[in-house]
Amino acid sequence: MSARLTIALDAMGGDHAPEIVISGAAIARRRFPQVDFLFFGDQARIDPLIDEHPKLRRVSTVRHTDMAVSAHERPSIALRRGQKTSMQLAINAVRDGEAAGLVSAGNTGALMAMSKVTLKTLPGIDRPAIAAYVPTQVGESVLLDLGANVECDANNLLQFGMLGAAFARTVLGLKRPTVGLLNVGAEEIKGRDMVKQAATLFRNVNLPFTFHGFVEGDDIGTGAVDVFVVDGFTGNVVLKSIEGTVRLYTDFLRRSFRNSLVTKLSYLLARGAFKQMRARIDPRRYNGATFLGLNGIVVKSHGGADAFGFANAIGVAVDMAANGIIEFIMRELEQSAEDPLLTSAQAAVS
Amino acid sequence: MSARLTIALDAMGGDHAPEIVISGAAIARRRFPQVDFLFFGDQARIDPLIDEHPKLRRVSTVRHTDMAVSAHERPSIALRRGQKTSMQLAINAVRDGEAAGLVSAGNTGALMAMSKVTLKTLPGIDRPAIAAYVPTQVGESVLLDLGANVECDANNLLQFGMLGAAFARTVLGLKRPTVGLLNVGAEEIKGRDMVKQAATLFRNVNLPFTFHGFVEGDDIGTGAVDVFVVDGFTGNVVLKSIEGTVRLYTDFLRRSFRNSLVTKLSYLLARGAFKQMRARIDPRRYNGATFLGLNGIVVKSHGGADAFGFANAIGVAVDMAANGIIEFIMRELEQSAEDPLLTSAQAAVS
Repeated sequence: MSARLTIALDAMGGDHAPEIVISGAAIARRRFPQVDFLFFGDQARIDPLIDEHPKLRRVSTVRHTDMAVSAHERPSIALRRGQKTSMQLAINAVRDGEAAGLVSAGNTGALMAMSKVTLKTLPGIDRPAIAAYVPTQVGESVLLDLGANVECDANNLLQFGMLGAAFARTVLGLKRPTVGLLNVGAEEIKGRDMVKQAATLFRNVNLPFTFHGFVEGDDIGTGAVDVFVVDGFTGNVVLKSIEGTVRLYTDFLRRSFRNSLVTKLSYLLARGAFKQMRARIDPRRYNGATFLGLNGIVVKSHGGADAFGFANAIGVAVDMAANGIIEFIMRELEQSAEDPLLTSAQAAVS
Repeated sequence: MSARLTIALDAMGGDHAPEIVISGAAIARRRFPQVDFLFFGDQARIDPLIDEHPKLRRVSTVRHTDMAVSAHERPSIALRRGQKTSMQLAINAVRDGEAAGLVSAGNTGALMAMSKVTLKTLPGIDRPAIAAYVPTQVGESVLLDLGANVECDANNLLQFGMLGAAFARTVLGLKRPTVGLLNVGAEEIKGRDMVKQAATLFRNVNLPFTFHGFVEGDDIGTGAVDVFVVDGFTGNVVLKSIEGTVRLYTDFLRRSFRNSLVTKLSYLLARGAFKQMRARIDPRRYNGATFLGLNGIVVKSHGGADAFGFANAIGVAVDMAANGIIEFIMRELEQSAEDPLLTSAQAAVS
């Protein structure tokens, strides 16, 4: 990890841009001294912010543009009119090899559409997926797809599993990750036909991961597998339900401790414990959803993320780049494309 | 609520049957003095358990059967061979008017299949749905479908919404509940076509609920609407993810407080606050999923529920029966079947 690495940043994306992007980069710089930053956006606003962090200034380059993709712009419009936006220019930097990956907190749909058109999907991948970490009782697992594909077929799910496993093997450093398919019941007879077909495909893949079979929603919290695979509609609703439940629990906890002087006192005593617990479950820690299956590293930060959260999203891009994940995924896809067992299983379900 | 009400209980369903069923009924008897219990199952095992509760004995009748549906039996097998099982006999008691509703902690698939065949769906309902309460920051909301229908069309979602709203109006006593469709984004342009079609139907229904439009996963925790409608695949995974997250959070909290003597002491001081918080989020409080859309009241308790949880499931059945929910739903379905606006919207999407 001694070679230098450039990360492109869409300085104009997100609810608190460009401030959060620059202060996030300043945090990331301390964590990743080998990284150079390439900012795209309004130079007149970006430069004074970077100047507040002299050490960041030394590893930063700013490319000016007046244009930015707005938060609620339709992806198709952004694609047509967005050629000079900070988002598109950051993607171009990855395509042209100027940057090893990019991070944007902007419009998810536009980022996915522009990334697909500019970077293209990897050979053997029909559709990219959005993946992120979720906290579990034993650490963290990868969940995908989180909304790129609201309708999926069995082959899409298989590809998501292969991509998620490659992510777990490189970035999480797991030798042989376990992969589970989310379904309504662990028994073979239950569930969607499409998910059952995907299970058949997974059983015929010869790659260094273990297919665990079907898993259920409550297996996410226990970390029953390293990679949870599901269609993008369900994955999106599930991830947001988990986030909502964490907020609900925190709210209940806060209200309960406000009740009396004794509980308020005990809260003060236990500040450290609460802090530790919140850190474990802090959604900012898990900020940074990655688009897997593209020929380039693209990480989406939550639009409302603060500097700490944005720095974590940069960390995801750095980890992926430092581990050479794109080349890794390409090798595995080549290998399975030549696998007669898998190809005949695929022919049987389609 | 002074008239007496009979609830049929499948005494042999669930992981801890028949013990939990009888001790659950004993708790429910104290809460609902107007209720008589009709137990179905192994009399030699049930009678001594009831004898431990003399007041329960006075309001109980036991009907003996040797047979029970097993936990992992396929629904189709249970349907064919299960005519003399405790589950089927309890359903028959509802069909024959002997009981106002039934509660079982047994095999969900078998209970749904047998209930559909025996009780039939209400006129205007294609498929029944499974509904349950979820805790929110402002109280509780209804979530459906939870797994009865892994594939749905727009009309199914509309019917789920009508059923959920009727449940909220009767059992929760809300004058004009709000109904939301779970989707991947609140914007009109996002999401599944099927869900967008359902939104069109909802906008053409003239019933006393307010269609709120699309909602997202994190709106569940805030209680953004009273009734959350989603297909049974997503609903099942979401509900279990919420349960798993509550367990994860509780586990993190426990581990954090074990760290030092000070935090242990503060835990003791704050016992009351923790207890209150746990009570708010306690899954046993929300036990009792109801099958809506059938011509009869059927409540499914979690298979692993304890007596407190089982008593809550009985409470759901009692609330539904005391509020005359079946007649209420039938009136609303009749009304909307004659609604020309809705019928033409339905013709347009199908």
